[in-house]
Amino acid sequence: HADRLRGIAPTIFSQMSALAVRTGAVNLGQGFPDRSGPDAVVDAAEAAMRAGQNQYAPGIGVPDLRQAIAAHQARHYGIGLDPDREVVVTTGCTEAVAAALLGLVNPGDEVLVLEPYYDSYLAMIAFAGGVRLPVTLRAPDFRLDVEELRRAVTDRTRVLLLNSPHNPTGSVLTRAELQAVADVATEHDLVVITDEVYEHLVFDDHEHIPLATLPGMAERTLTLSSAGKMFSFTGWKVGWATGPEELVGAVLSAKQWLSFSSGTPLQAAVAHALTHEASFYEELRVSLQGRRDLLCAGLGELDVDVRVPEGTYFATTDVSRLGWEDGMAFCRALPERAGVVAIPAQAFYDDLAEGRHLVRWAFCKEAEVIEDGLLKLQKAD
Amino acid sequence: HADRLRGIAPTIFSQMSALAVRTGAVNLGQGFPDRSGPDAVVDAAEAAMRAGQNQYAPGIGVPDLRQAIAAHQARHYGIGLDPDREVVVTTGCTEAVAAALLGLVNPGDEVLVLEPYYDSYLAMIAFAGGVRLPVTLRAPDFRLDVEELRRAVTDRTRVLLLNSPHNPTGSVLTRAELQAVADVATEHDLVVITDEVYEHLVFDDHEHIPLATLPGMAERTLTLSSAGKMFSFTGWKVGWATGPEELVGAVLSAKQWLSFSSGTPLQAAVAHALTHEASFYEELRVSLQGRRDLLCAGLGELDVDVRVPEGTYFATTDVSRLGWEDGMAFCRALPERAGVVAIPAQAFYDDLAEGRHLVRWAFCKEAEVIEDGLLKLQKAD
Ligand SMILES: CSCCC(=O)C(=O)O
Ligand SMILES: CSCCC(=O)C(=O)O
Repeated sequence: HADRLRGIAPTIFSQMSALAVRTGAVNLGQGFPDRSGPDAVVDAAEAAMRAGQNQYAPGIGVPDLRQAIAAHQARHYGIGLDPDREVVVTTGCTEAVAAALLGLVNPGDEVLVLEPYYDSYLAMIAFAGGVRLPVTLRAPDFRLDVEELRRAVTDRTRVLLLNSPHNPTGSVLTRAELQAVADVATEHDLVVITDEVYEHLVFDDHEHIPLATLPGMAERTLTLSSAGKMFSFTGWKVGWATGPEELVGAVLSAKQWLSFSSGTPLQAAVAHALTHEASFYEELRVSLQGRRDLLCAGLGELDVDVRVPEGTYFATTDVSRLGWEDGMAFCRALPERAGVVAIPAQAFYDDLAEGRHLVRWAFCKEAEVIEDGLLKLQKAD
Repeated sequence: HADRLRGIAPTIFSQMSALAVRTGAVNLGQGFPDRSGPDAVVDAAEAAMRAGQNQYAPGIGVPDLRQAIAAHQARHYGIGLDPDREVVVTTGCTEAVAAALLGLVNPGDEVLVLEPYYDSYLAMIAFAGGVRLPVTLRAPDFRLDVEELRRAVTDRTRVLLLNSPHNPTGSVLTRAELQAVADVATEHDLVVITDEVYEHLVFDDHEHIPLATLPGMAERTLTLSSAGKMFSFTGWKVGWATGPEELVGAVLSAKQWLSFSSGTPLQAAVAHALTHEASFYEELRVSLQGRRDLLCAGLGELDVDVRVPEGTYFATTDVSRLGWEDGMAFCRALPERAGVVAIPAQAFYDDLAEGRHLVRWAFCKEAEVIEDGLLKLQKAD
């Protein structure tokens, strides 16, 4: 094995989903819904296949989809994009992250990243030869500490890799927090890569603000998103990157060698979804908020400290009050003890002291599944 | 842009397909069929989507597909594989190549590669920090020069990256040539990555021999293939890597960060295809041979030197007798001159003198399309 694989374990999501399958446990770990998105989107994928749209898509993505992505950004955020130069389709947001880091980071370049981080960020920063600089969102509130962000930057910092709504904590950065990010980026001439896959899954009166809409940010921001979370087709892996031609071009240059292109008929279907199925994510936001409340209330009754998230699929708990100091040990024992799978958030920390006792629970499952999981946890208590 | 993108142009296939779309020319460039594979495979993809198989596949691939791949290798070649350890599904063979090189090559490691090479090899060897050592298949016969292969190896050589049936030349390595590869690999303790995506598209009485079936090779060979060429669904991007657990594990470790997984319902459909649709590629081989003969005869009448390929989608010609010394100039002018797109093979050479005058033509198109292309070429002559 190449040295770059050393110290990089199999993704915790694979480990935990395999454990769920093996033990038959309720999977509140990996973030995927157990109900598919709209039938009309499946109909569109079928129609595309029957019409013979089964050969290579252009590396940059099928034209209809690039247009639909640009229209979505215009409609929701007033962002104007040229679909032929400022949009590139990827194999899910994961490939967008991989290609952006390979396309923009040189060996030795520092990349600022929010801790707890999404695990592929870490691996791909390493593959690009970059050096990660974690800025920690600290429990129990998981807010961005702007002073900590400022202190972390050095003259070797090139990229700020951000996700809001934030996985795993569920924090949604406020305008003030985003403005601080923008100030730091401008002051130090950083490129910002912002992963906004949960852009439509924000609760209560919280608001998702794309970083690219802040003054002066459009020209230095590469925005990543995906149909997986937006339309509940996580397995289709249709994602995209948008932004200035130069940054989008770096993604395209790298990703043409990673997969070339993918999922031609699925790209056609996602074009349909973006154009005609916006009501789906509006309704998903409401139903997901209900399931968030169901999960958080149930976990609260178990006497764990729950942080009620502002967005995403996930709630984070502190399990130390249950007598478990180590969330990894807790999660490894849980399928046997209770028939439930959850994700040890410590997998997303450099600083073990910060994350050791934290466990992430997914509420993107049907209400009955969440109830079943809670019942099992209660019984095991 | 990161330095690793420097000197790496957009893939020639994207450039030339975009030119074909722009000019309305007949596309005999990029290798994709213009007729989809079996309807029953589309039916299977539809059924999978309707049954809700739309969320993340396991990173290693859906179990049915891994079993079907193992069964395919057993049935055709007598190769025995554990589908849980010795098979990994990828986003087409392109991702398999990317993940294999990132997973196995350290900076400074030398990688032997056949020249003319498939273009993603070059880019991904560079991304991994490797050094390529081309071994040239020389015109007009494009055979492997075993002595040249032996001379190329040094004590920093780690990997031999091979493709047979060979794109772009259409050569199918003989048992003697493969034995020489095996001898070199064993003698120098090399890992061999072998791209066999055209395994079923071999003509006349030529035979595809998987390198992994040669004595002593199974334990050091990673074999790559894909449903794209086998079942005429190049846009679905369902590929795989098979071989010893250690090599397959390296691919999985790298690719989990590149895309995580992809195309869940398409994976289910390819499982169906591998299990029930072998007659498709048996028939494709015959019809493709007919179209090869059509194209080669037509090109011959134009007074270019044609090399009749033993396998793949492609025939290579020497255009210097037409008065064009530079195949790149020839291919750039061709859409305007004749309304046809072809691929300048010089894009696949380090040694320009070897490849400057060579042009690759695809015959994986319908007979009428090939005839139309030939007619246009004749008129322009
Ligand atoms: C790509 S697997 C991880 C899915 C996910 O987004 C999560 O569980 O955080
Ligand atoms: C992935 S685009 C190239 C398609 C192909 O295999 C070829 O034309 O050689």
